[in-house]
Amino acid sequence: MATVRHAQQEDVPAILELIRELADYEHELHSVEATEEKLLSTIAFAPSTEDSSKSSPTTEPTSPSKPARCLVLTTPAGVPAGIALYFYNYSTWRAKPGIYLEDLYVKQDERKNGYGKRLLVELAKEVVAMQGGRLEWSVLKWNEPSIKFYESIGAKMMSEWVGMRVDGEGLTKLASLLD
Amino acid sequence: MATVRHAQQEDVPAILELIRELADYEHELHSVEATEEKLLSTIAFAPSTEDSSKSSPTTEPTSPSKPARCLVLTTPAGVPAGIALYFYNYSTWRAKPGIYLEDLYVKQDERKNGYGKRLLVELAKEVVAMQGGRLEWSVLKWNEPSIKFYESIGAKMMSEWVGMRVDGEGLTKLASLLD
Repeated sequence: MATVRHAQQEDVPAILELIRELADYEHELHSVEATEEKLLSTIAFAPSTEDSSKSSPTTEPTSPSKPARCLVLTTPAGVPAGIALYFYNYSTWRAKPGIYLEDLYVKQDERKNGYGKRLLVELAKEVVAMQGGRLEWSVLKWNEPSIKFYESIGAKMMSEWVGMRVDGEGLTKLASLLD
Repeated sequence: MATVRHAQQEDVPAILELIRELADYEHELHSVEATEEKLLSTIAFAPSTEDSSKSSPTTEPTSPSKPARCLVLTTPAGVPAGIALYFYNYSTWRAKPGIYLEDLYVKQDERKNGYGKRLLVELAKEVVAMQGGRLEWSVLKWNEPSIKFYESIGAKMMSEWVGMRVDGEGLTKLASLLD
């Protein structure tokens, strides 16, 4: 039976490997600036001494500098085969917290085992447990197989919305726009 | 000169009024489940005793149940005229935190004063100060005037992505999918 647990600091090398695999899969390996050190300083981890058989060990508190949490799925053989990197979001209408899944990845040779679904179910459980409003994520529009899978487990496409982003030079420019 | 500061608990009645105005503007007033009590328990506030002339007073820590922060813009006359409700997000590629702006609203009779831009600039400043990666938000696709405004201040449209959401009954169903 595969196990899902909150990441511990010791998982960072495996997490980085999975992040790089995901980036490579999306032909974006050159965009990966993440390092073990950076991951260590931005993810809220579960204590290393925690009994990893518990599904929801207490993690460090999230903070502006550590907003991310990470679930790690390990195979029955104990090998990390998938990750779900997420943070807490907010619904204003409902005045309720929720979860935004930033990245979900299952190793290519561990696909078709239901591991992606397992990670999504664990996140849905956390949203329900926190009396939260919603579980959200984004998908590339051309990724039809993923969209079909997500819809099959109850997700709705937010087709009427589009994301806006300011980063890089645009961000420092915007920050000083009124100076 | 208008002032932007982190919301204090005392601002909650004004915040709720602005949230309801925004919902009414979007013909979604019936969807607003937010109450003063719910906002009090889900937003990380600045201390009430804080000198509000400082632009970045220390707020309560965010947590899974209190992920939201709120900037309040007050007019030179001291009237709350706009809000920016946000939470911290995460970029995996960069292993960096950032800000997601969930809702931005300026009262209709206080438009054209640059208040929306002012709130976005304050958020960009916070992302830069935290050495964060990006400032993000979503906009309704048909809202051309807003999209043009956002692009004019450096935002890029994330047209190749679409959001997915699980909420309501779908959420409890997904949480128990593997039970």
